[in-house]
Amino acid sequence: MTRIDHTVHVALGERAYDILIGPTLLDDAGPILADRFPGRRYGIVTDRTVAEAQLPRLTRSLDAAGLGYDTIVLPAGESTKSYANLETVIEGLLAARLERGDLVIALGGGVIGDLAGFAAAITRRGMDFVQMPTSLLAQVDSSVGGKTGINSPHGKNLVGAFHQPKLVLADLSALDTLPKRQFAAGYAEVAKYGLIDDPDFFDWLDINLDEIFAGGPARGEAVARCCAHKARVVIEDEKENGVRALLNLGHTFGHALEKDTGYSDRLLHGEGVAIGMVLAHTFSARLGLAPGQDIGRVTSHLKRADLPTTLADIPGTLGTTDTLMTAIAQDKKVQRGALTFILTHGIGKAFIERNVDPDKVRTFLEEMRAP
Amino acid sequence: MTRIDHTVHVALGERAYDILIGPTLLDDAGPILADRFPGRRYGIVTDRTVAEAQLPRLTRSLDAAGLGYDTIVLPAGESTKSYANLETVIEGLLAARLERGDLVIALGGGVIGDLAGFAAAITRRGMDFVQMPTSLLAQVDSSVGGKTGINSPHGKNLVGAFHQPKLVLADLSALDTLPKRQFAAGYAEVAKYGLIDDPDFFDWLDINLDEIFAGGPARGEAVARCCAHKARVVIEDEKENGVRALLNLGHTFGHALEKDTGYSDRLLHGEGVAIGMVLAHTFSARLGLAPGQDIGRVTSHLKRADLPTTLADIPGTLGTTDTLMTAIAQDKKVQRGALTFILTHGIGKAFIERNVDPDKVRTFLEEMRAP
Ligand SMILES: NC(=O)c1ccc[n+]([C@@H]2O[C@H](COP(=O)([O-])OP(=O)(O)OC[C@H]3O[C@@H](n4cnc5c(N)ncnc54)[C@H](O)[C@@H]3O)[C@@H](O)[C@H]2O)c1
Ligand SMILES: NC(=O)c1ccc[n+]([C@@H]2O[C@H](COP(=O)([O-])OP(=O)(O)OC[C@H]3O[C@@H](n4cnc5c(N)ncnc54)[C@H](O)[C@@H]3O)[C@@H](O)[C@H]2O)c1
Ligand SMILES: [Zn+2]
Ligand SMILES: [Zn+2]
Repeated sequence: MTRIDHTVHVALGERAYDILIGPTLLDDAGPILADRFPGRRYGIVTDRTVAEAQLPRLTRSLDAAGLGYDTIVLPAGESTKSYANLETVIEGLLAARLERGDLVIALGGGVIGDLAGFAAAITRRGMDFVQMPTSLLAQVDSSVGGKTGINSPHGKNLVGAFHQPKLVLADLSALDTLPKRQFAAGYAEVAKYGLIDDPDFFDWLDINLDEIFAGGPARGEAVARCCAHKARVVIEDEKENGVRALLNLGHTFGHALEKDTGYSDRLLHGEGVAIGMVLAHTFSARLGLAPGQDIGRVTSHLKRADLPTTLADIPGTLGTTDTLMTAIAQDKKVQRGALTFILTHGIGKAFIERNVDPDKVRTFLEEMRAP
Repeated sequence: MTRIDHTVHVALGERAYDILIGPTLLDDAGPILADRFPGRRYGIVTDRTVAEAQLPRLTRSLDAAGLGYDTIVLPAGESTKSYANLETVIEGLLAARLERGDLVIALGGGVIGDLAGFAAAITRRGMDFVQMPTSLLAQVDSSVGGKTGINSPHGKNLVGAFHQPKLVLADLSALDTLPKRQFAAGYAEVAKYGLIDDPDFFDWLDINLDEIFAGGPARGEAVARCCAHKARVVIEDEKENGVRALLNLGHTFGHALEKDTGYSDRLLHGEGVAIGMVLAHTFSARLGLAPGQDIGRVTSHLKRADLPTTLADIPGTLGTTDTLMTAIAQDKKVQRGALTFILTHGIGKAFIERNVDPDKVRTFLEEMRAP
């Protein structure tokens, strides 16, 4: 008996799909896939860490259901989202003789989801794919919405495609093997949904944070509410021409910090987002747009999740303010030279500001760097 | 004064675009682009041969119109459609700081059109692009319809995306510097449109072949009729789920021969298609599907265009029949093991046959190889 605790439907017309959330979905993947996609073969893409921790659950289930598959295992980590690995995945899918009607399975965190989804998008000009997110970040964010891609030396996610999955299976117990620091990093994106436009959800998180980390029913509910939120935004603005940009709250600062720290272990994506969200709240307050007291609430909530919240929390030395400004200017959300930021009027009141004065950002960053 | 002899509109809803055909469109590109895409910057992608023969016409025009651009020049030839060059183009576009709203210009034959169009499709998750086809093949076929991509060691065009251009400028006098052999190869695709479902066009070609090669008004008319034909098919079946497959008449055999000759100078794409179309007619006749006399008409027409029409016309030694069969089976038009071919009931009466017996193909090929 398959246990599905929550189902979120992403109503995108002919690209619509379901997100299933439950504790045993990897063990039940075989019958679920056999039922929804009769007669297909599968190319599983995963990383070494996830292959060790979770892959056997999936393959046992596919074997039991008699489904044919090949597996492509890549190194773990952000640097896996490269041209070279894209080629490796595509060539692996072709070597496995998967046809246009077959399915790619992305089993892993956001790195594998982005890379495998992109490979699916461009192999034979478009193969179907299924997301099986195994990190919290991937379950609440990257596996939903169809943004796929790899990194360029010029910046993160600069190469990619919009390609929606056919199904998302978010297995909650997969998170049991996720390192605590990674879980916390993913949690930054959970908090983000509250901060954008759902103050009630932020309040609920404040109450349920411990249970979410410990793994009670609140964890599944949090994942489901985040997916529902993201699905709503994606349905409204699939290709990020407007409101979808709100999901980048904290990300312009965050990306600049990630770039500055070389996308290394010094700062995980979600950690950069955590600091970025605090900076976005603080910067908005400096600009007179938001009341100062929300900064404290945001900061202490993220601290409870063991997340960094200030530039000083980043180990090692940061680059110059000039370096950070260049990174901000190169961020892909820049349009014709003007800086676009997600600013806020307070918790749950984020908005897109397309005309931010670079000088004010520079002054603000200088101030934040001062000890 | 811009001279536009023919305009073909490709009515694809929000992806609709125009194909403009005339003798001076590269010289007039500046004002045309400035008018249609105000305020954009351009990344021109071309190959060394075309850069020498035609690029100055385009850049002079862009300079005169005050448009900003960067140029990426690649080696000429089919092997340019590689992962490595894809990366080169994307990184070049990013290095030129082109934004999502800027435009890629593909100036060249089908190789440049496919590669640059694909790079546009996946740079910043989708940039706009303009096709400026300079080979006959590109003007009548590859620049229209939005199929873009590169080759894999596993086969041609196995990696790519559907990405429609925003505009096609087919400059007829660009063809004046195209080598005669390349012109003839492109002509195979012209004849193809008649053979698929337009016997009147085939008759018209039989009358106008010399003028098309010499460069009178019939050349422009031929290009326009081919574009209109392809546009009709693409509108009906943008993603090649059905009728668009008819455009592959002669291509399953052709691709196998191209593969066998290593995508080299021994056999150009259009030359493979020419032989492939004769084989498709002959095979159809052998299967009792088509009257034998059309084989002769097709063959003599293609011979007048200086195109090869038999396996023996290919210089050097071909691989074994087994090798050819493997290539045919790997062609991306194979579905679940059954062979799909475009067969014909005679000139202008092609159809899709999804259940061709591999043994019959093998026997037929053996026979065609016998001296
Ligand atoms: N496509 C989108 O919309 C979108 C949105 C947000 C983030 N992203 C991308 O997602 C990526 C970050 O995702 P991530 O944080 O999941 O990174 P990740 O995929 O690198 O996973 C983090 C680490 O956790 C390990 N891991 C994952 N699941 C595990 C499990 N169940 N047990 C043990 N270890 C496990 C991985 O091996 C990796 O070492 C970034 O590249 C970011 O750009 C994409
Ligand atoms: N996307 C599609 O729908 C589609 C359709 C058919 C073919 N194709 C692809 O198109 C490619 C073949 O196109 P092609 O035949 O144009 O090949 P090509 O681009 O290699 O051009 C042929 C040669 O002619 C040269 N050339 C082009 N224009 C010239 C000019 N005006 N003056 C002098 N030299 C010129 C080129 O440098 C090259 O050496 C193949 O890769 C094929 O897969 C794509
Ligand atoms: Zn994020
Ligand atoms: Zn062709």
